[in-house]
Amino acid sequence: MIDAVSFENNTLGYLDQRLLPLKEEYVRTKDYRQAIAAIKTLAVRGAPLIGIVAGYTVILGLKSYSGSKEEFPHYFGNLIEEVEASRPTAVNLFFATARMKEVYDAHFAADPLEELFAKMLVAARKIHTDEIANCDNMARHGAALIKQDLAETLKTRKLNVLTHCNTGTLATGGSGTALGVIKHAWKEGLIEKVITAESRPLLQGLRLTAWELEKENIPFISISDSSSAFLMQKGMIDFGIVGADRIAANGDTANKIGTFAHAVSASVYNVPYYIAAPVSTIDITINNGSQIPIEERSADELRTIFGTQVGTPTTPVLNYAFDVTPHQYIRGIVTDKKAVVGNYSEELKRLVD
Amino acid sequence: MIDAVSFENNTLGYLDQRLLPLKEEYVRTKDYRQAIAAIKTLAVRGAPLIGIVAGYTVILGLKSYSGSKEEFPHYFGNLIEEVEASRPTAVNLFFATARMKEVYDAHFAADPLEELFAKMLVAARKIHTDEIANCDNMARHGAALIKQDLAETLKTRKLNVLTHCNTGTLATGGSGTALGVIKHAWKEGLIEKVITAESRPLLQGLRLTAWELEKENIPFISISDSSSAFLMQKGMIDFGIVGADRIAANGDTANKIGTFAHAVSASVYNVPYYIAAPVSTIDITINNGSQIPIEERSADELRTIFGTQVGTPTTPVLNYAFDVTPHQYIRGIVTDKKAVVGNYSEELKRLVD
Repeated sequence: MIDAVSFENNTLGYLDQRLLPLKEEYVRTKDYRQAIAAIKTLAVRGAPLIGIVAGYTVILGLKSYSGSKEEFPHYFGNLIEEVEASRPTAVNLFFATARMKEVYDAHFAADPLEELFAKMLVAARKIHTDEIANCDNMARHGAALIKQDLAETLKTRKLNVLTHCNTGTLATGGSGTALGVIKHAWKEGLIEKVITAESRPLLQGLRLTAWELEKENIPFISISDSSSAFLMQKGMIDFGIVGADRIAANGDTANKIGTFAHAVSASVYNVPYYIAAPVSTIDITINNGSQIPIEERSADELRTIFGTQVGTPTTPVLNYAFDVTPHQYIRGIVTDKKAVVGNYSEELKRLVD
Repeated sequence: MIDAVSFENNTLGYLDQRLLPLKEEYVRTKDYRQAIAAIKTLAVRGAPLIGIVAGYTVILGLKSYSGSKEEFPHYFGNLIEEVEASRPTAVNLFFATARMKEVYDAHFAADPLEELFAKMLVAARKIHTDEIANCDNMARHGAALIKQDLAETLKTRKLNVLTHCNTGTLATGGSGTALGVIKHAWKEGLIEKVITAESRPLLQGLRLTAWELEKENIPFISISDSSSAFLMQKGMIDFGIVGADRIAANGDTANKIGTFAHAVSASVYNVPYYIAAPVSTIDITINNGSQIPIEERSADELRTIFGTQVGTPTTPVLNYAFDVTPHQYIRGIVTDKKAVVGNYSEELKRLVD
């Protein structure tokens, strides 16, 4: 089992993901400022994982407090601000600090500091265990759906599954979203091998997903992103499953750039294509995918690769970080509550309510 | 105008393409062994360009001959063998040496060496000028077809065109195949901008096509390969045009991996998708694309990028160098003789006959 994050003996442990897959450096720290730096510098990444680390970072901050109860509110306010400033666009970060503030608001007045800190640690651990439980639930619902949808093929052989980017332990702290489903399906004997698209520009598929699958001894091959269409033409992919950054009310899904390209080929070759994401990813206030803002990232993500210049510094680049897969391309959306197949407008609303 | 290859004053000149786009090194040599090394080490690449350089390499070999006419057949035999060994899978290389051998066979007996060498130089120049003429013809036929197919859009605005890999001067010595068509269409005022897919694993789009377009002052942007589907969804691509490595009798086309992925998205969004290639690319002996052998290349093309390790050395990789685009995805095939739209089985046979 991969240990992406841990908290034992008042010490935060995390894998420095910037160095993966070439170097496995497990960092241990009691210093909350180092934990903040880890979020800032992308040593830890992946929305749920950032949330988990943010919770523990607050705990580290509390542990280094030696002042009076009177002076604590001021200290706590600064601490939360510092943590929130580490990566201001990461929504799970704010979700985590909000949970810590709730505990503070509810118990600061009545509890001695030591007791308050203990309750906050319970809350921080709960963020972590909730993510693990979410993953386990998605894994079960997803594997069950695949077993049902691909029953005919499974009568004669195991399945080859395509995935994109990294949606595993390194992103979630649990078994993963899409990759959690794949791992579970593999344990159930449904999977022949995983085909992991490298995921340009940042190569999370080639670097992180490949590393996780190697660790878990699950057979896989890495491909360039634009190979998936040809592999589907050759019948080498039985289904695809990917994560989500945001899901609109009608099921349109924003995810890492390249997700939709696979979906188009899948639709042409009748390859079922699934999304796996916790219910918290569903944004019911957004009607459809055209309303999801799509981040354009730095041109240098394409022009340089891990410090090596490949294009000229003046080459103009259009670097959308995400694309939108319209709901009609999605066979099913697997959440921690249940797997939804079609009829998304009604079904997703029901999940969120 | 880009000068990918030249032959003046018994000197071969070529751009060392391995260094592009970061360094423009124009090499000049009278040494045929250095010219062979340039082919061998991929300093020059692209099928037609290899053919041109091979012809001039034979001339350099002749120029360094100082023996008698009697001893020449032995020298010439060795020279041809050495040139052919430089890149044994490059068909244009053998096409070039065959032309030189024809001249030798026809004139060795009657001509003094000096005259024979002059005739061979004429033949070598003809390989070069033929490629330039082929490109010019494709450019005209292609631009005319596009003007006709996209007449409705052109009434209100210019066109955004997607291309893949490098099919320009750096590959052909002329204006290019697909890129030659694009350049011509741009000169005619049909093009708003070129969208060049980076073309993993070797990034010919990001490196070479971007460099050519920058040199020619044609507006462009580079994208990751798997962005094209999303751009088509957003209406940002009006047509696509790419080259071909081999075209089967029914129009199925093998080309750089990623070509088919763009084609699938194009078909879903009714974006016309064209192939541009000289008639010599049509292999009428192959019935359809499933019979075209597809080269699998080294895993390290994905695992390392320009010397930088990105995946682990043990990561399993499936690296098809080409994919096959079935003919029904191709709006038209632009050749040096004419542009063919549909009915490929009959039309391509007619072109080759």
